[in-house]
Amino acid sequence: MNAESVERKKTPRIVIIGGGFGGLYAAKELMHQPVSVTLLDRTNHHLFQPLLYQVATAGLSPGDIAQPIRHILKEAKNIEIVMEEVARIDGAQKLVITERKPIPYDYLIVAAGARHSYFGHSEWEQFAPGLKSLEDAIELRRRILEAFEFAEIAEDPDERKKALTFVVVGAGPTGVEMAGAIAELAHRSLADDFHHVNPRDARIILVDAAPRVLPAFEAKLSDSARKQLEQLQVEVRTGVMVKDVGPDGVHVGDELISTRTIVWAAGNAASPLAKSLGAELDRAGRVTVNEDLTIAGHPEVFVIGDMALFTHQTGQPLPGVCPVAMQMGRHAAKNILAASEGNPMTRFRYNDKGQMATIGRNRAVADLKVVGFGGFFAWLAWLFIHLIFLIGFRNRIAVFFQWMWAYVTYSRGARLIYGVFRPGRMPEPNSK
Amino acid sequence: MNAESVERKKTPRIVIIGGGFGGLYAAKELMHQPVSVTLLDRTNHHLFQPLLYQVATAGLSPGDIAQPIRHILKEAKNIEIVMEEVARIDGAQKLVITERKPIPYDYLIVAAGARHSYFGHSEWEQFAPGLKSLEDAIELRRRILEAFEFAEIAEDPDERKKALTFVVVGAGPTGVEMAGAIAELAHRSLADDFHHVNPRDARIILVDAAPRVLPAFEAKLSDSARKQLEQLQVEVRTGVMVKDVGPDGVHVGDELISTRTIVWAAGNAASPLAKSLGAELDRAGRVTVNEDLTIAGHPEVFVIGDMALFTHQTGQPLPGVCPVAMQMGRHAAKNILAASEGNPMTRFRYNDKGQMATIGRNRAVADLKVVGFGGFFAWLAWLFIHLIFLIGFRNRIAVFFQWMWAYVTYSRGARLIYGVFRPGRMPEPNSK
Repeated sequence: MNAESVERKKTPRIVIIGGGFGGLYAAKELMHQPVSVTLLDRTNHHLFQPLLYQVATAGLSPGDIAQPIRHILKEAKNIEIVMEEVARIDGAQKLVITERKPIPYDYLIVAAGARHSYFGHSEWEQFAPGLKSLEDAIELRRRILEAFEFAEIAEDPDERKKALTFVVVGAGPTGVEMAGAIAELAHRSLADDFHHVNPRDARIILVDAAPRVLPAFEAKLSDSARKQLEQLQVEVRTGVMVKDVGPDGVHVGDELISTRTIVWAAGNAASPLAKSLGAELDRAGRVTVNEDLTIAGHPEVFVIGDMALFTHQTGQPLPGVCPVAMQMGRHAAKNILAASEGNPMTRFRYNDKGQMATIGRNRAVADLKVVGFGGFFAWLAWLFIHLIFLIGFRNRIAVFFQWMWAYVTYSRGARLIYGVFRPGRMPEPNSK
Repeated sequence: MNAESVERKKTPRIVIIGGGFGGLYAAKELMHQPVSVTLLDRTNHHLFQPLLYQVATAGLSPGDIAQPIRHILKEAKNIEIVMEEVARIDGAQKLVITERKPIPYDYLIVAAGARHSYFGHSEWEQFAPGLKSLEDAIELRRRILEAFEFAEIAEDPDERKKALTFVVVGAGPTGVEMAGAIAELAHRSLADDFHHVNPRDARIILVDAAPRVLPAFEAKLSDSARKQLEQLQVEVRTGVMVKDVGPDGVHVGDELISTRTIVWAAGNAASPLAKSLGAELDRAGRVTVNEDLTIAGHPEVFVIGDMALFTHQTGQPLPGVCPVAMQMGRHAAKNILAASEGNPMTRFRYNDKGQMATIGRNRAVADLKVVGFGGFFAWLAWLFIHLIFLIGFRNRIAVFFQWMWAYVTYSRGARLIYGVFRPGRMPEPNSK
C-alpha cells in the first residue's frame, strides 16, 4: 500500500467531468499514458448526440446510439470510470465535489456540455422539451407518437387539428433535422396506419427568429435546405419571434399556432458547473477560455466543448458541434501531458472540415469548405460520416441495418410509447 | 351516411381488451370478416413477453421485442385500434367504460393479462419489481446495471458485497431465465469492465418455496435445469420461503440475504378488470370460464389468456403461457363468428406442443411432449421457436443479429441506464 501511495503521488491525477465527445476524446488521448485519470459522468453511457433526433422520431433505438463509457474505455487500465453527478468544483482546493466524497485533482478537464435554454422562460420547458439526452428523446418520441393516437380518437375537429400540428422552434441543424424527420414520420411511415385521421394531413411548422434556416451555413445552402424542407411539406417560418409557449400552443408574432407537440431547438445554456469555476461567463453560460483551453488564473483547469467560449481563432465563438469538442478534448489532454513533463502548453486551433445537416431521405446539405452542396450526395456524405464516427462496431452495424431497412420500407423500427420521464406532461387522454 | 349506419347496425360490434398474444390472435382471426372490431390497449405496442428478460438483462433493446399494434394490423380495415386504458366493464349495459366515453359491444373479449402478485405484501414491490411490461424491464435493467456501478465506488466491503448480490424470487421459467441471464451478464459481459470489483464475484441466488426449479416441467428436466444453472454459478435454493423483502435484502427462512437488487418472478394476479365482470374468481384473480371460453350468465363475454381459469380439459388450470393465449384468442374469435351467424359455439381444447425455458448461452430445457431434453439442442430449439413467433420481420432480423453478435462476442448491446419509471427507487448514490 505504501509503495503504491508513493507511486500515486508522482503520477498526475486528472479528473474529466463528462463522457461526451470532449471528455471521451480527452480520455482516449490519456489512455496508456503515465497519468491517473478519473472520468465522471452522471449516466453510464456516451451518447452519439448527432443521431438523437432519430431516436426522438422512432427511427433508431436508444441502444443504437449509446455505448457504456466503461466498455469503450475498457482497455484503459489507467482510467477509472465513475457514474456520479458532480455538485460543484472547488478550484482553490483542487477538488471535484460529488455527493459521495471530494475527488482531488492535479489537472481538471470540464466537459459537461450544455442543456437547452428558454431565454428566461423556464416555464416553457414542460410544453416544449428540448433534445439533449436519451430521456429527452424518449419523451419527445412519446409526445409525437401520442399526438397521432390522440388525433385518432379526438371527436372535436379543432382538437384533432391541434393534435396533428407539430411546431419546431429553432432552425439550426437540430430543428431542421427534427422538422424533416417528423414530416417523414407523418407523411410516410404512419401514413396508412390510422382509420379516422390521415397522418398526411399533419402540419409541421419550423419557426425561427433568424431570417433564414441553418444560419451558420452559407446562404446558398440555407436556400437549398429550405427548399428541401418545403418538398417534405414542412412550413418554414423565419424572421418570426416566439412570444409565448403554453398548453394551447405557440404564440408566434400575433398568431397562436394551436398545437400540443412543440420541440425546442432554439437555444443552449452551458452546464451550471461553469458557474462554480468563478470564471467569466457569456450570456449562454459559457466559460471564456485561454488559447491553450485553460481558464484565467487556473492553468490546471481546462474547459472544452459546448461549455467553452473560444474566440481566439476567428474573433467569433467556435460553434457547439462534435468536431470542436473532439479536437478540444484531444488538445487539452496533450497540453496536460506536456505540462506534466515540464513542457509548455500549445494553443488550440480548430481544424474546420465543414458542417452538414440532414433533412430527410435523400435530403441534406453539406458545407465541406472547399465545396458546398445539397440533396442526395450531401445526404450520402452525411450518412457515411455519421456511421464512421459512431462509436462501437456493433452500433455501426445496427444503425446501418436500420437505416437501410427504413430506406427500403419507409417504416420505422422504434415506434414505442412508454415511460413518463418528467413532469409537465399534458393532462390529456392516453395516460398510463 | 344513412346507408352506412343501417349497415353498421347489422354488423356485430366486437371489443377486444388487450393487445397481448390473446387479443392480437383474436384480432387476426377477425380480420377481413363481416364484423366491426375495436381493440383497446393502454400501450401502443404488442410486446413479445417471452423475451422481456433479455431487455431486463441488456441483451436486447425495447424496440426489438415490441411492435405498434396499429402497424401489425394495418391491413385490417374492420379493426380500429384505440390506445386507451379501460376503467371497468358494464356487463349489464354491454359497455366498456374508458376515461373518454363508453364503448358499446355485442361481443367482448377480455384479454388484459396479469401483473405480478406479492401475496398480500404489495409493499415489497418497490424493492422487488417484477417483469411484465417494457417499463418493468427497463427498470430492472437500470437496477441491475447500477448495482455494479455502485459496487465499483462503494468503500465499505459489506456494501460492495451487498451490491454484487442478486436475488431472483421464483424459479418458474421467468425466474430461471433471469437468474441465468444475470449470471452471464456478470460473469461474462461485464467481467472486465471494472477496476475495483470483479463482476465474476457476483452472487446470483434463485429462491423458490417449491422443492424444485421449473415445477411445471417433468422432474428429469428440472434436474437438468438446476445443473445448468449451477454450471453458470447460480446458487439454487428450493424449498425455502421468502418471509420478508426490504431495503436490506430478502429474508429467507431465518437468514437475511443482504442485497439491493431483487427480481420478483414468484406470482401472478389477473388484471383487476376481472373483478368488474362479476364472475367467479380464483385466488389469483382469474375468471372461471366455460368450455367455450364465455363466462357464466354472459354468452357474449369471453375471457382468455392469463386472465382465464380453464379447468375443463385436465381438471387443472391451463398455464399462463403464450400458446394458451394465442389458441384461446383464435378460438374465442371463431366462436363469435359462429354465434353471429346463428351457429353453435364449440368447446376450447388446448393443443399442448410442450414448453421450454432457456438458461443461458447453449443452455435450455425443452419438453416437447414426445421428447424432453436439455442443453445445447434445447437451446437451439428455443432460439428457433422464439424467432419464428416474434411478430414482425424486421424485429426478427434485428433480434437474430443481436443474438449472433452476443454469441460471438459475449457482449451485450443495450447496457443503458436511464429513466426512473416508478416510485420505490432506493435512496442510494447514482441518482439522476
